Amino acid sequence: MPINLLKPLNSDILVISGISLSSFEAELKYKHRKDLALIFLDEGSLVAGVFTQNKFAAAPVVIAKENLNMSPRVRALIINTGSANAGTGEKGIEDTKDICNQLAESLKVSFEEVLPFSTGVIMTHLPLGKIKNSITPLVNKLNPNNWLDAAEAIMTTDTIPKAFSISGEVDGTEVNITGICKGSGMINPNMATMLSFIGTDANINSEMLNELTHEITEKTFNKISVDGDTSTNDSFVIAATNKAKHQKIVKKDHKYEALKNLMEIVAKQLAQSIVRDGEGASKFIEIIVEQGPSEIDCHNIAKSVANSPLVKTAFFASDPNLGRILAAIGNAEVEKLDISSINIYLNNILFARDGTIANEYSEEIGKQEMSKDEITLKIQIGNGLANATMWTSDLSYEYVKINSDYRT
Amino acid sequence: MPINLLKPLNSDILVISGISLSSFEAELKYKHRKDLALIFLDEGSLVAGVFTQNKFAAAPVVIAKENLNMSPRVRALIINTGSANAGTGEKGIEDTKDICNQLAESLKVSFEEVLPFSTGVIMTHLPLGKIKNSITPLVNKLNPNNWLDAAEAIMTTDTIPKAFSISGEVDGTEVNITGICKGSGMINPNMATMLSFIGTDANINSEMLNELTHEITEKTFNKISVDGDTSTNDSFVIAATNKAKHQKIVKKDHKYEALKNLMEIVAKQLAQSIVRDGEGASKFIEIIVEQGPSEIDCHNIAKSVANSPLVKTAFFASDPNLGRILAAIGNAEVEKLDISSINIYLNNILFARDGTIANEYSEEIGKQEMSKDEITLKIQIGNGLANATMWTSDLSYEYVKINSDYRT
Repeated sequence: MPINLLKPLNSDILVISGISLSSFEAELKYKHRKDLALIFLDEGSLVAGVFTQNKFAAAPVVIAKENLNMSPRVRALIINTGSANAGTGEKGIEDTKDICNQLAESLKVSFEEVLPFSTGVIMTHLPLGKIKNSITPLVNKLNPNNWLDAAEAIMTTDTIPKAFSISGEVDGTEVNITGICKGSGMINPNMATMLSFIGTDANINSEMLNELTHEITEKTFNKISVDGDTSTNDSFVIAATNKAKHQKIVKKDHKYEALKNLMEIVAKQLAQSIVRDGEGASKFIEIIVEQGPSEIDCHNIAKSVANSPLVKTAFFASDPNLGRILAAIGNAEVEKLDISSINIYLNNILFARDGTIANEYSEEIGKQEMSKDEITLKIQIGNGLANATMWTSDLSYEYVKINSDYRT
Repeated sequence: MPINLLKPLNSDILVISGISLSSFEAELKYKHRKDLALIFLDEGSLVAGVFTQNKFAAAPVVIAKENLNMSPRVRALIINTGSANAGTGEKGIEDTKDICNQLAESLKVSFEEVLPFSTGVIMTHLPLGKIKNSITPLVNKLNPNNWLDAAEAIMTTDTIPKAFSISGEVDGTEVNITGICKGSGMINPNMATMLSFIGTDANINSEMLNELTHEITEKTFNKISVDGDTSTNDSFVIAATNKAKHQKIVKKDHKYEALKNLMEIVAKQLAQSIVRDGEGASKFIEIIVEQGPSEIDCHNIAKSVANSPLVKTAFFASDPNLGRILAAIGNAEVEKLDISSINIYLNNILFARDGTIANEYSEEIGKQEMSKDEITLKIQIGNGLANATMWTSDLSYEYVKINSDYRT
């Protein structure tokens, strides 16, 4: 059961001028389920992306990065589920190229203007014939209103399609942003088994779009963790169609900041929706580390707590076994840590003062707070001004079940 | 159910000349369960130890390290379960000192000659009165035959007491070694929620005993992982009573090597027994990484695979979703990795050649091998001569259950 997350309505999703989408049931793994998506961009659109750091990067990641390096002028993105096309060697690369070539021909664009994405089981080859046979119907179905359709088509263990829109002003001009994503397991900082595509009609040059994509990734998708695993296929892409009438963003000025603020709202919503739909998750946990000596130290402490199976099972059980949080903090990769200055709050309840049990804390209060489905854990290091936030979920029987049965 | 691990018999355990032990039911957490242990060493014994790197080191760890730094001439070790006495601030330190003082008085030794150890729930104070009241009966029950009793007294979520003995020759003289340990969750390289005490009658000076303890830790207790968590109380101690008649070991000669070989057998058996009794574990998995550029790279790759929840759930399900192993390898903290030279074997079955699916591999064979309860995963990097081994277990419903219910 996703935590406080409802299926988005089509009426909540904004069309982005210059972007059309489609989906198709290609029976890549299951019947009667959308499993292929196409995103088509008008000429003049620019794309920037951030990709997995996993050394077993999938074939589509290799090709997408290569094509994006050639030019940010991208026209089409194709996404399949079922097979991740990772650990598939030369054949994997050839299969991906084959698909991109056929799509390019069908859309009358060049091979380099196509970016491929795959998600699913690692070390299985793509069902090449089924995908190639689906390209014509995919192209024929392109429509600006199909964002939610596309969000459904990229789901794997997700229980809900994830899409979010916002509109706001850049330099007095209305700008629209719509994003979709998938992911619910193998989620770790530095990306995840996640794909996310955000489109905007904002007017921005390639350099600034690239900068924006990296800044947004750091603040949103790199702050989530479900199980500490990192996948071979993670990709986050922003496409800007440059249709909006405001002056082009070419430097980090107030226009850039305005767009970044809007973009961050969308990306944060999407990133959090992945945690809220985390495999077997029953609780959404925000971990705030503050008063630290550096942002990286704060981040490493948040990450150690977020990824501790013992902390996660305690949250699942609503068991205020809060000492496990101390152990996870002490286990973090930080050079120095004076534990005697650490305070920790569970939903505004101080339970550890100066590194030890707070006098006013009682097990009863702890139990009450732990039983909530939205929990904020605030860790004050007491040794600086830096801070970092991370979003995570608990570890349940259901997580084990989903990941034991995933392929069957 | 522990994996291929039987309860040791008293008849398998060797007495160590110069060491006596006792246990007591102090009702620290549960009734009718041994929960306090005392190990008493004859005068002339030396002790060396390795302690947790967790920054929330427990009060007993702080005191044990301090006392050991004063002198390796130790006379007594006292261990309680129920409370870890970690995250307990100044009061935690005072409580531990209080216990050590009373024990020292009762044994007519000095405070500095006592080493305290605790294991159990973090951030709870010791039941001080109950422990202090138990010191007289503990001292009165000391007996050289009580190794297994002591092994039982230090258990927490362990399902089986862990003890192992060996006798062998050092320089033509018979030497005995007996060790006990506890631990089954929160197990990670760089120690674990584990305590281990090994006694020997070998004749060795303090410098060499210290060196031996560190070398053995690296090769055994630092190679195990159950859930990737590291505790506040980990301690591994070797006590040498120097009663054996061989010439004293004062340098790394053949005598040192002979003792090290024997010691490694005992420590490896104990370390593996922790994994075999891993919380909810149903499979014992040996991960061998070889042909790597450096030992640390090999270790980091082994660790990434050992700690991946997705790999661990696949093992639990006997599901040959072997791509997850690739993803975990690609996720390891190593500078460079050429995935196209990696071969991976599952119990001698080659399933990945040159970083991709091996032609001769079939799902059917994979399923058969995954269903065994002892699994060897061999990862050949193909880029050097270094290697590393790690021992781990799978991740089951039972792990979540144990760790959700631990305190109740």
